[in-house]
Amino acid sequence: MVAPPDADLFAAAPPEVSVYEVSPRDGLQNEPIIVPLEGKLQLIQALADAGIKRIEATSFVSPKWVPQLADAGELISELLGPPGSPPGPIVYTALVPNARGGERAIDGRTDEFNLVMSASATHNLANLRMTQAQSVRTLAEVIAQAQQARVAVNVSLSCAFGCPMEGEVPGAEVLAWVQRFVDLGVTNVTLCDTTGMADPGLVARRVGAAVARFPQVAFTAHFHDTRGLAGANTYAALQAGVTRFDASLGGIGGCPYAPGASGNVATEDLVHLLQCLGLDCGLTVEGLAPATKHLRTLLGHDLPAAVGRAGPRWQRHAPPADFEQIRERALARDATG
Amino acid sequence: MVAPPDADLFAAAPPEVSVYEVSPRDGLQNEPIIVPLEGKLQLIQALADAGIKRIEATSFVSPKWVPQLADAGELISELLGPPGSPPGPIVYTALVPNARGGERAIDGRTDEFNLVMSASATHNLANLRMTQAQSVRTLAEVIAQAQQARVAVNVSLSCAFGCPMEGEVPGAEVLAWVQRFVDLGVTNVTLCDTTGMADPGLVARRVGAAVARFPQVAFTAHFHDTRGLAGANTYAALQAGVTRFDASLGGIGGCPYAPGASGNVATEDLVHLLQCLGLDCGLTVEGLAPATKHLRTLLGHDLPAAVGRAGPRWQRHAPPADFEQIRERALARDATG
Repeated sequence: MVAPPDADLFAAAPPEVSVYEVSPRDGLQNEPIIVPLEGKLQLIQALADAGIKRIEATSFVSPKWVPQLADAGELISELLGPPGSPPGPIVYTALVPNARGGERAIDGRTDEFNLVMSASATHNLANLRMTQAQSVRTLAEVIAQAQQARVAVNVSLSCAFGCPMEGEVPGAEVLAWVQRFVDLGVTNVTLCDTTGMADPGLVARRVGAAVARFPQVAFTAHFHDTRGLAGANTYAALQAGVTRFDASLGGIGGCPYAPGASGNVATEDLVHLLQCLGLDCGLTVEGLAPATKHLRTLLGHDLPAAVGRAGPRWQRHAPPADFEQIRERALARDATG
Repeated sequence: MVAPPDADLFAAAPPEVSVYEVSPRDGLQNEPIIVPLEGKLQLIQALADAGIKRIEATSFVSPKWVPQLADAGELISELLGPPGSPPGPIVYTALVPNARGGERAIDGRTDEFNLVMSASATHNLANLRMTQAQSVRTLAEVIAQAQQARVAVNVSLSCAFGCPMEGEVPGAEVLAWVQRFVDLGVTNVTLCDTTGMADPGLVARRVGAAVARFPQVAFTAHFHDTRGLAGANTYAALQAGVTRFDASLGGIGGCPYAPGASGNVATEDLVHLLQCLGLDCGLTVEGLAPATKHLRTLLGHDLPAAVGRAGPRWQRHAPPADFEQIRERALARDATG
């Protein structure tokens, strides 16, 4: 009825998987409070201590729009040290909305620019206040700026699996956007399920097509757990050959179009799934625990991560306190029965 | 690096999928309140109205252990009508723990017995207060009783993907338990992830092996969303050829070994996933909404179902109120730029 499973999909050559942390930018910008610079630096240090190798640290947007990240310049300077400092083991990326932001990012010696536009015209206008044509021009300008400064570039394509306002976004359009970025010299593209509309079938088809058509592009998948499908979508993306995933510690990061819903897939939940699958991402649920604890303290509220509540699958629980009596009574029934 | 995806896994011949509802038994027995008989009947009617075709309605265990289901006899009589009533369109199944319960179930003309034992010796003792050998003897007795009364039988194997107290449960042992049930004439077996320890890789291997070895058995998968993996596990089970799934409306039903964690996969979330995948289960998220609303009223608390909070992926949201001004300002920049 259905194709037989490839039960040993990852057994022959398990891929190494990269987990990219987005909580300091994508997470914190959706929180009602403004976390002070010192708290952000401690969070990023805790993430680094856990073994995270790429962190979206901040955004060089106008503080008018995102007051939570108004300290972007200071944060990046603190992370990357004074000019002439040797490169560290962690790639610090920052969202760069335009050339002005790009100048600030280059001044701070940001390791990588993350550029954002949406596959949905409506979402692009609502979120970025630009038409898609304007976004493409802006992206081209910032990409040229980064190339000149020899800074790495990643483009994140929002609503790559659907738009909460427009509905379906055709796969051909998503591929056409990727082609435009490739034409501009981009080799790193993140396909973002911005509001949790992806399902594993759609991921298999869409991500599979993107990977097949653009073998030169390093694709990252960015899933939200809005409808409980982040794990399924991750599994489908792994089956499609993707090995790079965005995640946000604790699952912070909102979804303004689905009130009350979960946001980004939690780093703990993603790492837990990868550990269950036997895939090495250089991280463990236990190693992330101090960072999770720190984040909860910073924000003062519970975090959506499922593994944070339930613990990992390998966590053992003691039998009931009266287990020995239960056993003795059961065995006694055999003796007398 | 990994095997290429079969993006069109279900495209050629999408299987029909059956969703079995367990909230009246597995759900309500884990609630702190006792729902009155009338409330249960209304819930089951709402589930029937939504199109559910098989409902685990109650349990013939001692009211001493499960006071929430003390009205099992009355409930089944109400559902199945007086002796001589024609069979209805819905299969009402009841958990039957022993021959005494079996007599009560047969008196009420229950459509199907659901028998339970655990693949973990420790969990079997803790949960059923019997050794596994005692459970097998009890099951054999009740199966013979059901066969004589010409009542259908399903066996649910708990901890088929791991035990929170013992840890891993070897796949060979799970297959050996299924073989024992098959030897007793059982053709319907549910593999239960009782405390949410399954992951999609384990499901692919274990369920794939079971389906391959026992082609004569109709397997049902019973997943919990304890660690956010119910969707991924469902997807992996579908890939392995399973087309029958347990689910509990709203996601009710606890997991005593993972405090604060989600319980059974929510029927709404499962149906949403199946709709996304284009698989017909005779149900829709919208059709379930009245039942969900009724359940929330009955229980007086919010339900864990993700789709209940976020709505289905096809739910549209209006653009921001000032969207036209945003667009005009954006276009004006082009005109003046």
